[in-house]
Amino acid sequence: MNIYADHAATTRMSQTAIDAMLPYMSQCYGNPSSLHTVGQKANEALTQARERIAACLGCDAREITFTSGGSEADNQAIISAARLGEKKGKKHIISTAFEHHAVLHTLKKLEKEGFAVTLLDVHENGMVSAQQVEAAIRPDTCLVTVMFANNEIGSVQPIAEIGAVCRSKGVLFHTDAVQAAGHLHIDVVSQQIDMLSLSAHKFHGPKGCGVLYARKGIRLTNLIEGGAQERGKRAGTENIPGIMGMAAALEEACAHIDENAARLIPLRDKLIAGLSAIPHSALNGDPVNRLPSNVNFCFEGIEGESLLLLLDDKGICASSGSACTSGSLDPSHVLLAIGRVHDVAHGSLRLSLGEDITEEEIDYLIRSVTEVVAYLRRMSPVWRDLQSGKRAFILK
Amino acid sequence: MNIYADHAATTRMSQTAIDAMLPYMSQCYGNPSSLHTVGQKANEALTQARERIAACLGCDAREITFTSGGSEADNQAIISAARLGEKKGKKHIISTAFEHHAVLHTLKKLEKEGFAVTLLDVHENGMVSAQQVEAAIRPDTCLVTVMFANNEIGSVQPIAEIGAVCRSKGVLFHTDAVQAAGHLHIDVVSQQIDMLSLSAHKFHGPKGCGVLYARKGIRLTNLIEGGAQERGKRAGTENIPGIMGMAAALEEACAHIDENAARLIPLRDKLIAGLSAIPHSALNGDPVNRLPSNVNFCFEGIEGESLLLLLDDKGICASSGSACTSGSLDPSHVLLAIGRVHDVAHGSLRLSLGEDITEEEIDYLIRSVTEVVAYLRRMSPVWRDLQSGKRAFILK
Repeated sequence: MNIYADHAATTRMSQTAIDAMLPYMSQCYGNPSSLHTVGQKANEALTQARERIAACLGCDAREITFTSGGSEADNQAIISAARLGEKKGKKHIISTAFEHHAVLHTLKKLEKEGFAVTLLDVHENGMVSAQQVEAAIRPDTCLVTVMFANNEIGSVQPIAEIGAVCRSKGVLFHTDAVQAAGHLHIDVVSQQIDMLSLSAHKFHGPKGCGVLYARKGIRLTNLIEGGAQERGKRAGTENIPGIMGMAAALEEACAHIDENAARLIPLRDKLIAGLSAIPHSALNGDPVNRLPSNVNFCFEGIEGESLLLLLDDKGICASSGSACTSGSLDPSHVLLAIGRVHDVAHGSLRLSLGEDITEEEIDYLIRSVTEVVAYLRRMSPVWRDLQSGKRAFILK
Repeated sequence: MNIYADHAATTRMSQTAIDAMLPYMSQCYGNPSSLHTVGQKANEALTQARERIAACLGCDAREITFTSGGSEADNQAIISAARLGEKKGKKHIISTAFEHHAVLHTLKKLEKEGFAVTLLDVHENGMVSAQQVEAAIRPDTCLVTVMFANNEIGSVQPIAEIGAVCRSKGVLFHTDAVQAAGHLHIDVVSQQIDMLSLSAHKFHGPKGCGVLYARKGIRLTNLIEGGAQERGKRAGTENIPGIMGMAAALEEACAHIDENAARLIPLRDKLIAGLSAIPHSALNGDPVNRLPSNVNFCFEGIEGESLLLLLDDKGICASSGSACTSGSLDPSHVLLAIGRVHDVAHGSLRLSLGEDITEEEIDYLIRSVTEVVAYLRRMSPVWRDLQSGKRAFILK
């Protein structure tokens, strides 16, 4: 059995998205900036894609900037808010300890420039609250950036509540919605979101394509200077095939959010129940406020990397956390943020399910993970120490 | 007859490039950072693409950074050199007046930070010389950036000579090779190029995909912070389908450079001869040192935009200059740089030929342009003034 359970890292492109791209590679291949017919056809496609994506987010087409992906969108959103803030003498930014590195590393860069950054503590269930945000806002706060749903532990944040606090305090609110877009309902008006980032390859769209939504009136700072594309805010010939693929994939995903959730949540919860039966294990993230696709566990006494390799042998593609940091030996900053100690954080497993996962596959996942964890523990000196009482168990 | 003669703006993707992309959309769709089999297959593709592209440029695979296109690569090259320079107290950059805006606007940004920028004058034939570069180098010069071939007038610069001057003076040399890659021979070692930018969609590859070559030891500055992709120098999940399409397109283009040039140059020169027969017209750029595909003319007494629209009616897709600035009413900065006055610069036409252009199509281009120019002149008050002697002709 082969199960790809790493949809948080990336997804297979849907046929809908591929079909939407192909005509713009070989037939309607113009540069939208060109005045002639071939260029203008590409320009019409660009306009249409912008409107379709705006409709999925509940915003105006003019509020959409196409980027090369979620990381670029996160960077541009934060840099833009910082530049607007410093003009008014506001150099304080609020974020959380479990953001994606595209956010955290951008904030680090701004700290070197003299910005003050408050990273909110994350509750052990993987949540931050609007009250925490409110308490952290200072007169010089120019930006609050809190992710919509965490990429590792799947916890879904109270975005509308945070949006309401920020709007009432007159502070810009950005959310990294890379894991949320196409999977959770987004409406930037009712959720009072000022800026939002998304990435097409997380919802069966193409890689190399993302969106930065910025509410009308928020002046963006260019990361890439050059031509006048994207209202002068993002230079470079537009990736029309990618943008068309992204629009098609986002529409398709958004049309099936409720249906997919209704199907996935019972399967996800069956998987969580099955893995909870493994002794000395713990679910990471909130059991209820979580992505329908996300399951994340820590197993005491084992190394996550060995677990992944043995699962791979059984045809299961999983991860220990973010793909973006999988080359690193450090434990996940997300798991540390929710209070897992180093040793426990090292034994983590993220299974992120596809919409087409079956109950039979869930059973296979439970059986395989249970077997592999038991096998690794039999070989683990740490586990021996835990069993003999030389070390104390941390997980129940 | 339909003739797409705007290949400098963008090209139709080749079937080779499309075929190279497709498997990475639907089958081998992994995230190269993932440790499992699906991810590692994507990672192998990435490694292979990097090696194939490096071979086309004569560099090492580790010297290749994948970007979202030529503009991003230009920005990152220049910002990186500036950051390296300022650490040593070197804040002077040499460039030319006819670079792409991705270069010029980045330089403007650096000027606001306190960098001094010398823009070399361009000779009226569209060339700058290594001697000019040498004369402009100061003890505090940290970068010379001169484009390989101009995007509007097609003039090919003496890159190896400029490279030799820069290397001998210990100054970094970057070249925007967006119009050259796949069309002219590039060898970064013999041409002594330290940094080079290219964009896949200019040689029948995908849009949204480019390369920054930076010689080993040149520390890049991130434009996009986040994950550890591209040795930590360019965050964001790699666009594997795009990169595979780019590698295939570049290999295909590089394998046919001489053959394409041998076929195109006589056709280009026939077109130049044909359009030169139009009275009061002038070729822009050097007649010999020019891209095999590029023809650029000024016609006195007419507006370039009207010319484009009427040619479009005849099935001819052309441009007046760079697509990136075609929304602007200002005359081309490139034509002004080679000494064309405003009125003449407004009447410009760029025809950039595809490799498959036929002699019959060249004849149709000559006939159509000749007819349309004559038609527009009959309606032009400026032309009437020129004819009556109220205004003096500038072009012979």
